[in-house]
Amino acid sequence: MTIKLYCFGESGNAYKAALALELSGLDWEPVFVDFFNGETRTERYRTEVNEMGEVPVMVDGDFRLSQSGAIQQYIADKTGKFGGEGRERYEVLRWVLWDNHKLSSVAGMTRFLMNFLPAEKRPEPVIAFNQGRLKAAYTVLNNHLRGRDWIVGDGPTNADFSCCGYLFYPEPFGFDRAEWPEIDRWLSNIQSLPGWKHPYDLMPGNPSDRA
Amino acid sequence: MTIKLYCFGESGNAYKAALALELSGLDWEPVFVDFFNGETRTERYRTEVNEMGEVPVMVDGDFRLSQSGAIQQYIADKTGKFGGEGRERYEVLRWVLWDNHKLSSVAGMTRFLMNFLPAEKRPEPVIAFNQGRLKAAYTVLNNHLRGRDWIVGDGPTNADFSCCGYLFYPEPFGFDRAEWPEIDRWLSNIQSLPGWKHPYDLMPGNPSDRA
Repeated sequence: MTIKLYCFGESGNAYKAALALELSGLDWEPVFVDFFNGETRTERYRTEVNEMGEVPVMVDGDFRLSQSGAIQQYIADKTGKFGGEGRERYEVLRWVLWDNHKLSSVAGMTRFLMNFLPAEKRPEPVIAFNQGRLKAAYTVLNNHLRGRDWIVGDGPTNADFSCCGYLFYPEPFGFDRAEWPEIDRWLSNIQSLPGWKHPYDLMPGNPSDRA
Repeated sequence: MTIKLYCFGESGNAYKAALALELSGLDWEPVFVDFFNGETRTERYRTEVNEMGEVPVMVDGDFRLSQSGAIQQYIADKTGKFGGEGRERYEVLRWVLWDNHKLSSVAGMTRFLMNFLPAEKRPEPVIAFNQGRLKAAYTVLNNHLRGRDWIVGDGPTNADFSCCGYLFYPEPFGFDRAEWPEIDRWLSNIQSLPGWKHPYDLMPGNPSDRA
């Protein structure tokens, strides 16, 4: 049974789940969600796909699940990959939660405001405030990665696939790899994993579709 | 061995872990963190307690863990309580992640900006923007709770203890129980649990200490 993932290329949250699916070796296929034409705000999407009005949503047979971190946990339980062993399981979850709380949530919002809203609608004070918060988050991650190849343990886990969610995108949102050498090195480690793909190569939809 | 929880009363994120510890029946005690005098920003706290510079941090013997959702998972694994059964485990995690991403992260920040910063430093455009995001989150939660007593399944889980993290506090941040009848009813269910305590009764420190 092929797992379906409701997603679109611009969503770093969807990328986290898509990357875990792809690198785990599971059989999966994307279902394109037309976010930029309002699909996630429709009554149909809210009632039939996800009451939270978000991507990603995974469907595996009769099981439907949203939130990238929950999907990653499901993949880890199903394949034995990327979830950590023993106490490391909690460390993986800890970084997934930190990412959701402090990094991806702020990065995703800021990237949206800076790139996908008309210039006259951009809330500049919010963007500036968020960039201050992001700098604090990059500092925590960069410091943690000093002397490490991966966020938890000796190999890639869902902690890595969560924290990198928005960091490969080309659109500006206040992140420059060159300013964060440990993050830069770690992102290269992820890019070197066999089968790694950029978000715009892994999921359908990207900004050039709307150009 | 008594579990220690680094926390302070004003932290809704710490409350989520403290409430799960308290209601699970585990033996635990709070360790007061003097957040408002900068303790979480000190080099000592960052190196010895938590590199993320946050509360809560749980210490159980030689195991140290931060992030409320990870601590809740540890408590569920240790006690068999509040984590859900079978597929419900993923639903619990889904709502914990949604809360971290969309509800508590925004509520906690907005409450801080509105109540714990000097008036002249309050970034009003950020507060207004966040309140729009919070209204969307309250709508998702209120709709989900229609016809339900608990967020997942037939009894309280960590999903409830996560989503309620900031909703019992008296300080204004744009949440009025009376406007959200399903949330109001669900919060009353939580308050009716044997052993339930308000955050300022469960953890040391509250705004009157600084009055």
